[in-house]
Amino acid sequence: MDDTVLLGHGSGGTMMKRIIDEVFFEAYAGANLLRGNDAAVLPSPGSVASTGPLGYSGSLSFSTDSFVVDPHFFPGGDIGRLAVCGTVNDVATAGAEPKYLSCGFILEEGFPMDDLRRICASMAEAAREAGVEIVTGDTKVVNRGHGDGIYINTSGVGYAYAGCDLGGEKCVPGDKVLVTGTMGDHGITIMSCRESLSFAADIESDAAPLNHLIAEVLEAAPNTRCFRDPTRGGLASTLNELAAQSGTDITVDEEAVPVKSAVLGACEMLGYDVFQVANEGKMVCVVPADQADAALAAMRANEYGRDAAIVGDVAAMQPDRGPKVFLRTAFGSTRILDMLVGEQLPRIC
Amino acid sequence: MDDTVLLGHGSGGTMMKRIIDEVFFEAYAGANLLRGNDAAVLPSPGSVASTGPLGYSGSLSFSTDSFVVDPHFFPGGDIGRLAVCGTVNDVATAGAEPKYLSCGFILEEGFPMDDLRRICASMAEAAREAGVEIVTGDTKVVNRGHGDGIYINTSGVGYAYAGCDLGGEKCVPGDKVLVTGTMGDHGITIMSCRESLSFAADIESDAAPLNHLIAEVLEAAPNTRCFRDPTRGGLASTLNELAAQSGTDITVDEEAVPVKSAVLGACEMLGYDVFQVANEGKMVCVVPADQADAALAAMRANEYGRDAAIVGDVAAMQPDRGPKVFLRTAFGSTRILDMLVGEQLPRIC
Repeated sequence: MDDTVLLGHGSGGTMMKRIIDEVFFEAYAGANLLRGNDAAVLPSPGSVASTGPLGYSGSLSFSTDSFVVDPHFFPGGDIGRLAVCGTVNDVATAGAEPKYLSCGFILEEGFPMDDLRRICASMAEAAREAGVEIVTGDTKVVNRGHGDGIYINTSGVGYAYAGCDLGGEKCVPGDKVLVTGTMGDHGITIMSCRESLSFAADIESDAAPLNHLIAEVLEAAPNTRCFRDPTRGGLASTLNELAAQSGTDITVDEEAVPVKSAVLGACEMLGYDVFQVANEGKMVCVVPADQADAALAAMRANEYGRDAAIVGDVAAMQPDRGPKVFLRTAFGSTRILDMLVGEQLPRIC
Repeated sequence: MDDTVLLGHGSGGTMMKRIIDEVFFEAYAGANLLRGNDAAVLPSPGSVASTGPLGYSGSLSFSTDSFVVDPHFFPGGDIGRLAVCGTVNDVATAGAEPKYLSCGFILEEGFPMDDLRRICASMAEAAREAGVEIVTGDTKVVNRGHGDGIYINTSGVGYAYAGCDLGGEKCVPGDKVLVTGTMGDHGITIMSCRESLSFAADIESDAAPLNHLIAEVLEAAPNTRCFRDPTRGGLASTLNELAAQSGTDITVDEEAVPVKSAVLGACEMLGYDVFQVANEGKMVCVVPADQADAALAAMRANEYGRDAAIVGDVAAMQPDRGPKVFLRTAFGSTRILDMLVGEQLPRIC
């Protein structure tokens, strides 16, 4: 097998067949992928019974994400783990069980084949953990100097749970806002990795598949309004999206939001707002007040939700100035928590 | 609105919201996309009746493709039209009606916003023609020098037709091989565009959505074995894949394969084998001999199948030497038609 990726690996001919057989099939071959046709044929939710406590509604959840993170490997994960978890989490936010993933690689000529194998093995492991199957794929190779080693797109199809109709527009005054854990870990890890900053010692990316956690919360808090993963733009941007979609105000208690001290220290030193820093293994969740404790308990019972907290409230919007997000600071004052403007940390996912 | 793509357009914050609202929603907003959540929730085939003559089986077809074509605009199409048609065609080859597309952009800092708008408009038009809805998307921006203006991934979900079980492995000795039109148009267009060769005057890309044609062939020839689009690697690579999957020999009549004289001239001048040159709006189709005429008539009745032809036969493999593809030349001799080795024309899709 070749040591590096060559243009011929994207040719559609024998070299492409070789990279598919020796790298991709080797890493994550399942019956659907191995059939070798241009599209996978898959059961739809109407014909399959759910094995968990939540039944299927018969609807599909469909999402896509491309990953261009730099560097490709970092403490707590790599671009492959990110690519599987990111799409699994997006599909799950619709109140769905992620089932199938596609995987499209854009490789740069000269990319080390061993790195590709390592990334594929990491994708396979994340897919196993999430319980999803990689069923179809595509490989393109671009000339040296026209990529950055590897870009990955994953798209995902899930089966929606019966009785769920989640969405940012469902938040209503009185609801509680929860986060499933500490904020900012992923973004600060990537940044400190890129800049070789030493405070990174005890920080690592939180990249994780949260579909099982989401299902457990939905079981415990069946009237959950929405889930959204605060990736690019962080908690602040996610809350601003939810406020805008639902036409509400949201107020967050600064002291209630879990943040690791190393992450907070890094943010203070570098002038970042930790609420605008990206996460890859966390969810923001809005639930009716009377189900907030149940949702919190379900989160904390999951390995990826141990640090979950109730962090804020949804309130009626002041009609004269549109939906806003507020931060109640540790000193008791309140300030507006804005959406990220421009770019703080490019290519964190 | 900004004139070029900036890193902030991939930030997850207000600039990203602006490019989504002003470019992507503007081009192809539908109810599913506009809901603004991270995953689209869609009906599955069990809950929707087919409006055409073919019913749904209840299964899904799922495929993905990334597009890195250089140049972005060329006679007969652009990267956007290619991105929609390519995935529509792959989904349809499973014997399915393509319904939903995702769209993931990897944009390079500095890419002209007007080019992006033009590409999105072209995607929207191709989607309308194919009858598919773009329901979910993602945008990443990479630094200048780490991309090539624009890369697009599309993934597609379709509803499989009842009674279809298509696949390369279904070909059996005695079957006929058809192509839906002239070979090599797309690859030669891209190559001559890139090299500014003048013989390109009357050649243009064949990029087209073939899902309606496929449905018409399936109605006329219900025992069709498979469809495959001879993109990268051309007719030769596609036939070698089918022979390998089904354990058969395939023989093609050189004179029966439709090729435009300008394309043939270009191939002869440049030393390319036209059977290894890519197509983006053609299908190879294998059918039982007694349905070949019906399939051919259905193809020719469709605007994208006017030049369709029966070009070859499937035969039993010689057990001592594995599946092979043969070309019966105009002079009556027979030679092996190999899969493309290495790379002939990089980045044609």
